[in-house]
Amino acid sequence: MANPHSLQALSWRRLYLSRAKLKASGRTSALLAGFAMQVAMVELQIENEKHMDDPAYEKLVVCFTVCSVLLVLVHLFALLISVCILPNIEAVSNVHNINAVNESPHDSLHNYIEMAWACSTILGIVLFIVEIMFLCWVKLYDHRTSAWIATAMCIPALLLLCLFAIRFYVILMQHKFHRSSRGLEELENMATKLNGDNQLNIQTV
Amino acid sequence: MANPHSLQALSWRRLYLSRAKLKASGRTSALLAGFAMQVAMVELQIENEKHMDDPAYEKLVVCFTVCSVLLVLVHLFALLISVCILPNIEAVSNVHNINAVNESPHDSLHNYIEMAWACSTILGIVLFIVEIMFLCWVKLYDHRTSAWIATAMCIPALLLLCLFAIRFYVILMQHKFHRSSRGLEELENMATKLNGDNQLNIQTV
Amino acid sequence: MANPHSLQALSWRRLYLSRAKLKASGRTSALLAGFAMQVAMVELQIENEKHMDDPAYEKLVVCFTVCSVLLVLVHLFALLISVCILPNIEAVSNVHNINAVNESPHDSLHNYIEMAWACSTILGIVLFIVEIMFLCWVKLYDHRTSAWIATAMCIPALLLLCLFAIRFYVILMQHKFHRSSRGLEELENMATKLNGDNQLNIQTV
Amino acid sequence: MANPHSLQALSWRRLYLSRAKLKASGRTSALLAGFAMQVAMVELQIENEKHMDDPAYEKLVVCFTVCSVLLVLVHLFALLISVCILPNIEAVSNVHNINAVNESPHDSLHNYIEMAWACSTILGIVLFIVEIMFLCWVKLYDHRTSAWIATAMCIPALLLLCLFAIRFYVILMQHKFHRSSRGLEELENMATKLNGDNQLNIQTV
Amino acid sequence: MANPHSLQALSWRRLYLSRAKLKASGRTSALLAGFAMQVAMVELQIENEKHMDDPAYEKLVVCFTVCSVLLVLVHLFALLISVCILPNIEAVSNVHNINAVNESPHDSLHNYIEMAWACSTILGIVLFIVEIMFLCWVKLYDHRTSAWIATAMCIPALLLLCLFAIRFYVILMQHKFHRSSRGLEELENMATKLNGDNQLNIQTV
Amino acid sequence: MANPHSLQALSWRRLYLSRAKLKASGRTSALLAGFAMQVAMVELQIENEKHMDDPAYEKLVVCFTVCSVLLVLVHLFALLISVCILPNIEAVSNVHNINAVNESPHDSLHNYIEMAWACSTILGIVLFIVEIMFLCWVKLYDHRTSAWIATAMCIPALLLLCLFAIRFYVILMQHKFHRSSRGLEELENMATKLNGDNQLNIQTV
Repeated sequence: MANPHSLQALSWRRLYLSRAKLKASGRTSALLAGFAMQVAMVELQIENEKHMDDPAYEKLVVCFTVCSVLLVLVHLFALLISVCILPNIEAVSNVHNINAVNESPHDSLHNYIEMAWACSTILGIVLFIVEIMFLCWVKLYDHRTSAWIATAMCIPALLLLCLFAIRFYVILMQHKFHRSSRGLEELENMATKLNGDNQLNIQTV
Repeated sequence: MANPHSLQALSWRRLYLSRAKLKASGRTSALLAGFAMQVAMVELQIENEKHMDDPAYEKLVVCFTVCSVLLVLVHLFALLISVCILPNIEAVSNVHNINAVNESPHDSLHNYIEMAWACSTILGIVLFIVEIMFLCWVKLYDHRTSAWIATAMCIPALLLLCLFAIRFYVILMQHKFHRSSRGLEELENMATKLNGDNQLNIQTV
Repeated sequence: MANPHSLQALSWRRLYLSRAKLKASGRTSALLAGFAMQVAMVELQIENEKHMDDPAYEKLVVCFTVCSVLLVLVHLFALLISVCILPNIEAVSNVHNINAVNESPHDSLHNYIEMAWACSTILGIVLFIVEIMFLCWVKLYDHRTSAWIATAMCIPALLLLCLFAIRFYVILMQHKFHRSSRGLEELENMATKLNGDNQLNIQTV
Repeated sequence: MANPHSLQALSWRRLYLSRAKLKASGRTSALLAGFAMQVAMVELQIENEKHMDDPAYEKLVVCFTVCSVLLVLVHLFALLISVCILPNIEAVSNVHNINAVNESPHDSLHNYIEMAWACSTILGIVLFIVEIMFLCWVKLYDHRTSAWIATAMCIPALLLLCLFAIRFYVILMQHKFHRSSRGLEELENMATKLNGDNQLNIQTV
Repeated sequence: MANPHSLQALSWRRLYLSRAKLKASGRTSALLAGFAMQVAMVELQIENEKHMDDPAYEKLVVCFTVCSVLLVLVHLFALLISVCILPNIEAVSNVHNINAVNESPHDSLHNYIEMAWACSTILGIVLFIVEIMFLCWVKLYDHRTSAWIATAMCIPALLLLCLFAIRFYVILMQHKFHRSSRGLEELENMATKLNGDNQLNIQTV
Repeated sequence: MANPHSLQALSWRRLYLSRAKLKASGRTSALLAGFAMQVAMVELQIENEKHMDDPAYEKLVVCFTVCSVLLVLVHLFALLISVCILPNIEAVSNVHNINAVNESPHDSLHNYIEMAWACSTILGIVLFIVEIMFLCWVKLYDHRTSAWIATAMCIPALLLLCLFAIRFYVILMQHKFHRSSRGLEELENMATKLNGDNQLNIQTV
């Protein structure tokens, strides 16, 4: 029933999408991991001088450490997936043979590719904003007003980001559904037309 | 009425434009976010030593924090949009099939692409200049003259930038309008000529 | 028996895979070695001020040093292999001659390429996480709770990474096995069909 | 009179030139802005410790601040123009249609492109040298001899740069004039020859 | 005797190999020189505070200085060779003319290219490991155990690296020898076959 | 007399060489200027604390300042030339028209291109080594032995570099002369052969 040629064209499209996603996720993770380490380094250089006996500050340091470590782990994980899978896909995309697409593991490893992308974009950026929020608290511990204002700015930003992520997903799904339904409609039209032609042919015969 | 082939050529043009804008916005945001974090880091390392009891200085720190956080958030937002949408567009632009352009979500996500671009260019650079202004005040708090002069230089620069942005938008719109109207004129000429030819043909017949 | 043309196509595929792996391993090693040196630098700048007489701290410094040196060595080793072998492969992949693939040493040096890749990805990232764990202990020696929590986060991350590495290897092998067995099946089908055709031909003769 | 085909070829040449200039100006501005911020950061970290009551030093700080802010503003401006216009030009240069050149706004925005280029090259580098001169004075305030020598080296360098800029402009103009006049000569020769051929043809007729 | 066409193909292959080696050596040298300077900078910032009167420490500083300077010189030398020769080779590889390969100086400058490559890879990485060893001693002068362990790790690494370099060279030579001898065998086979054909032809005549 | 087609091929070759040289000089200058500023920054951060009254140290600071400023000026100059000329050459090399090479100003600006290249390679690297020598003296002022050894290593390195530069120039010239003389020989052979053929033709006639 299904056209084997168009199935392969679809598979190449998925291959190119996977490749583009892995490349983007690798680059973004390297960049944000670099920023995160720079931020954490500065924090670690200074924080153990004052407020040694303040239990609230101690809790803050715990939260900041958890967030920093999580952020670096998430980006290292995305980087690892990107570095492991990308060469297998790139080796295939260099071959100028339309059947080569079946050799590429991008369909079997689909879940990992999506995970790497989600880790380095949505999760990675959300954690980065939380990290900035904690950093403001750690650094501006003596300027409470500034710290509260920074928190008040980061929380709506987080909500906005999640909203964008959902909207983006919905639009992408709608776009795909719209494309498929239009494809179906065209097929039906073709079928009707063919039927009509056949009946015409029959009548003319 | 409309030529389907030229409609697709137009759609490819919009696809290339979206791709170029997302690439430029991703690169600029990474660069400026890096500069902004470097600036904010230096500020955070030193500022809590002097002027502890000066309420004016306290307000300055609040403003500087607000501006820094906003700047980083704006660039992170532009980066997120760029990283989310770009792979979907690049996957399509690698396919050598003129109909593939309909699969790309660059028309549905048009608003987000424009937003990412505006965030990373106009808003991002305006906030960066404001950040430099506040930085000069925080750092040169004891050299008031320098701080005032820096402010006096940044404000016209901000105005100039906004003026450039408006001029750029106007010229771009005029260019597009000029192109469309010339296209229409040519169509009319062609129509007149065709009519004339037809009448000639009729007369010669 | 074997088709010489398809053998060469296979060899080109292995060449592209080797090139992609070496490129990825070179880039990742440069990035992570840079991060590692930045981390170790900061550590070396500060640690010799406090806790001079604490034997537990002394042991910690030993572990951290071992891990840092190992990390830098592993990445330098991956970088060296990548820099040594890559030019020999790239020189061949620029030649537009299908027989040139036999000149490339990617089959003889297969083990080294796999080693460089394993060093810079799996081993390199595992060591990097261990390094972060030790860094948290060295820096947060006075904030034991934070250090314990960071350790509690890194250990499952390490397990997860190893699990991913095994899963990835299994999926890749399954994919290759699946591809080969399907290839065999198709060959058998062809053989049966040819036999049938031959018998038909014989019968028709 | 004018050959429409060669007019379009000329327009493509201008498009490629604009694209190359915008790319070069974007890259140079990012680089020099990074250097300038690094320089200014170091200055801001130290300067407010000594010479607090020296009015000459105060004036020096004012000059240095003015120069630094101007330098960063100039490069931000060049960056903004490059980021705004480049995507519109790149989108066109990807289209493989010789008439597409008319869609590109590189002729309407010619002045802005030249401005971005001048900002990031001539003005940007001149300001950078002035910045280095002031930096030497601020840093080597106690080593007057060094500061004077640095000044004595920067001023001829500035003159040399301006001289080079003028020479470069003159050579470029001469080259263009030479090209055009040779083109005209060739046209005249062709015209004379054609006339001669025509007369010959007439005579032979 | 020799086929001029295959001689030129061989020359192009050497050209591509030289280009790939020079590119790799330029990039690696820039990277490692950057790391080396960063390491040496940190060392120079701190070392002159303690252990002023310890003659063993003084000797350590001498060794570290020698190694740092040698490392930077080696990478600068590799960079210089790469920057000097690469443009002459790249200019030729852009020309689409099979005879252009004779214009390229990659055969005359063969020794320098190999030297640049050896400097930036083998010698550069060996010196870098020695540098790390000395750095550990300079920084961990009060933590002798750590310093001894670091030394105990670096020395086998150095041996391993040299072993790899030798193995790599042997495999490459074996590969080339194997290729040439197979080529000779094929030629002999061809000759035998031609002789046989000739004799057959003679017999049939 | 001269073949116009081969003249243009030669001109394209010079164009590609100029482009490759300008690119290499731009990249090297950016890299080395970055290293130089990093070195000079560190120096400027510390030097004004000790040895205030030592006239020998004062002279050292003068020399170091002169060398640093000269180094940055040389690389800025090379960068400026590269950024100014490159777009004019790149715009031409994108046009697929063999006559376009005459539009490119690479022949008129030949001297500037060679100067940029010499500035960023030979002069730039020589000055960089002198800078390292002075840096060792400024930093290791209390460890005279180290400073003398560093000097003893840099001076032969400088000689070696100059020797390489001269050797490289000689080999390049010899290569060009060898190519031209072989070209002439071939022409003479062709001429002799043609004469012979003519005489043969005459005799046979």
